[in-house]
Formats: sequence, C-alpha cells, structure tokens
Amino acid sequence: MKKTQPNEVSPALLAYLQGFISDDRKVRFEEVLAERTRHITCVLENIVDAHNANAVIRTCECFGIQDVHVIENEHRFKAAKKVLQGAHKWLSIFKYKETESKSMDCIRALKAKGYKIVATSPHAGSIDIHELELNQPLALVMGQENIGISEVVKAEADVFVKIPMQGFTESLNISVAAAILLQEISSRLRRIETDNWKLSEIEKDEIRKEWTLKNIYRNELLIERFYQDQKNV
Amino acid sequence: MKKTQPNEVSPALLAYLQGFISDDRKVRFEEVLAERTRHITCVLENIVDAHNANAVIRTCECFGIQDVHVIENEHRFKAAKKVLQGAHKWLSIFKYKETESKSMDCIRALKAKGYKIVATSPHAGSIDIHELELNQPLALVMGQENIGISEVVKAEADVFVKIPMQGFTESLNISVAAAILLQEISSRLRRIETDNWKLSEIEKDEIRKEWTLKNIYRNELLIERFYQDQKNV
Repeated sequence: MKKTQPNEVSPALLAYLQGFISDDRKVRFEEVLAERTRHITCVLENIVDAHNANAVIRTCECFGIQDVHVIENEHRFKAAKKVLQGAHKWLSIFKYKETESKSMDCIRALKAKGYKIVATSPHAGSIDIHELELNQPLALVMGQENIGISEVVKAEADVFVKIPMQGFTESLNISVAAAILLQEISSRLRRIETDNWKLSEIEKDEIRKEWTLKNIYRNELLIERFYQDQKNV
Repeated sequence: MKKTQPNEVSPALLAYLQGFISDDRKVRFEEVLAERTRHITCVLENIVDAHNANAVIRTCECFGIQDVHVIENEHRFKAAKKVLQGAHKWLSIFKYKETESKSMDCIRALKAKGYKIVATSPHAGSIDIHELELNQPLALVMGQENIGISEVVKAEADVFVKIPMQGFTESLNISVAAAILLQEISSRLRRIETDNWKLSEIEKDEIRKEWTLKNIYRNELLIERFYQDQKNV
C-alpha cells in the first residue's frame, strides 16, 4: 500500500486520525508547534562521526529547530538510535547526496529561501556568537570534524562566528559547538518581542499532519477504513 | 628513573626547564593561567560512553575549567584521543575508583573545599541555568546517560538546574548538556567584576610547573643534567 504523504491528508482525514491519538499527546503537539522555528536551521556538512551528527539532530529537536540539512559528500549519514532518542522523527531532515555539487546545492537552496549563511570559524574576523544579529533567518553550517567547512561554504558564507574560548585546545567537539551556538541563538530569539520566528499556520498544519501520521502505528489501515466509510455514506 | 613531581621543582629548576620551551609557548602558558578557574568544576559520575566523557573533558579545557572529577562506579573512564585532542594533559583530573562509596567520597571532598553541589535535572523544582548564583564555588555533576545522577548525588545536591527545552525529546546528550551549562556559567563568571574566580599565585605556580614538565619530552634527562651542573659548580 502506498504511504500517505502529509499533503494528501484532508482536514476530515486529519480529524479522523487524531481520534486515535490521546488528548495529552495532541496538547503536546500544539505546545511544541507553538515553539517550533524555521528562523534558525542547522546544516551538517560531511560529518564523519555518527555520534556527532546524531547528537546535533537531537539538540535541534530539543531547542525547537524544525529543519536540519545534511550534506553527504564522502560521508553518509548513519542514524544512531541511542544518541537520537527518537528526535529525528519530529524533524524535517533534508539530504543532499545525489549531485556533484552537494554543498552548493544546499547553500543555493537556503539562500533562495532568504537564509543568511553562518559558518563557524575560530579565526580572526569572526564575530562573537552574542553579536550575531537575528533579524534574518540563519543557517548555521557545521563543517567536518578535522578540516572544518568546505571551500564552497567558506566562499558563500555571509558571516563567520566563533565561541570565545580560554584554553590550549583549539576547537570544541562539533556536537558541542553546535549545541552552544543553537542554544544561545534560539534562546535569544525566544526573548525577542516579535513573533516572526514562529511557524505560519500553513507550516504548522503540514507538520501537524506529518506528526499525526508518524504517531499512529500502521496508519494505512485506519486511512483505508476512513475512505471505505466515506464511500458507504 | 623516578618521575619528577611538580612540587619537587624548585624555582631554579623551573627557570632552567623553561629555557627549553619557546617564548611563544611560555606566553601562552601565562595567558591560559590568567583565565583558569577552580570556581567551577565538573564531576562525571559513572559515564558509560567514552565519547561523552572525553568530550566533556575537552569542553572543560576550552572554557578554562582546571579540575575534572571522574567517579568510576561500574564504568571505567577510557581516554579517546580523537575526541580529547590533547585536552586532558592541561587539566587536573581526579579519579574516584578505589572505595565502595566513590560518589560519596567525591561529594564529601568537594563540600570540604567549599563547593556547592549542582545537579542537572529536567524535573519540576529545578532552576533555570541563568538563575544559578555564582558567588560560591560550583561543582556541576553530570550523571550517567540513561539513569542520570545517583541517589547519593540526589540526596547531597544543594541545587538542581535545568536547561529550558522546547521539543519532544526529554533530554540532551550528556556532553551537549555539560557544554551548554559550562559555557553559560563560565562566560557569566568572566563578566563579573570580582576576580575571586581566578587561581591564586600559589595555584598558578604549581600548574605552571606541571605544564612545564609535561611540555618537555624526556624531561628526566634535562633534570639530571641540571642537578649534575649544580654539583659541579
């Protein structure tokens, strides 16, 4: 049976399916949706260590960041269940792996949507994370463990940020750096008076449908019954 | 040959050994020492995943936190070089593994030194990290991945803190949570006007000696020559 996509779910089907989800769960859906944002997104470029990539995805979910972009140049993303703790199923994960110019495809897609490309770099000329302006949507790119971001991202970045450090060690672990950045930016964003970081009602509706489908085990049986009942009316 | 300990290094021997360290390196020692703190310390209680424990140690070094306490109840700490990036050699790492009551030994030792025990907990009654007062030395305890802090730490903790979150996932990865807490607390501490978080000159001197010894490959040969030269004067 063909898997039903969120955009195929009518309001009537949504209402029917939500009848099979507990009230507590539905309340939780709305609470989380109210705090969800696409104003910040995270890009993982060619991350080697599965622990790192998965930990970043979990962090995004924890801080209400809906979209994660995964560029797989040489290194394919592998899910690590123990690290993820189910976080991925609540997110929109976009993968770039088909073409030669994966990093450029991702950057162009994000710029077309109005994102400012933010790269992390400990070097001179980078601004402190606290100075990063939040008025425009931000795509935070985390580069590969040892070599950092690619030349493509370096050339296309609109701004470079750094986390102030005081030790001998030159860089933080990547999942740690991403977490500090995402927490700082997202908590600052939530303290801003405007609501332009929140999802639109259309976006919320689409995600609500996706979550509803994912939350019901073997939803295809219920969907079949729904269409059957409709015919019989 | 017996390994020389920092407290056996006289001022004359220190000066002699520092003659074999580049000026740039010595300047860096002093810069890092000036930012080092024992006002915050981190306790790792029985962490299972080597990646997590090592990432926390690296984070401590990056944020100038000198002391890390490692309680090894069932799980022994294993160094992971790729994650550590050499960070451990600049830190004072205290291990608790000999007695039956490892967690209690660690907590008692910290309380005797005037530390407030800070445990992380996402539950009600925990204060937000931004509300944590910094006037007293703080020992931040990170508990085991799935079960969290032990009953001993729960009973002995002076305060419980949480990181505000907005998703479905109930907890952050432990290396991520530690990093957010350590970065927030240490950067706030550095903005305070008083200097009581800095190391004393005696503490700096001891660490300077330790770093000097560690920075010279086969220092025992130079130390032998130093004592030989002294005799021949």
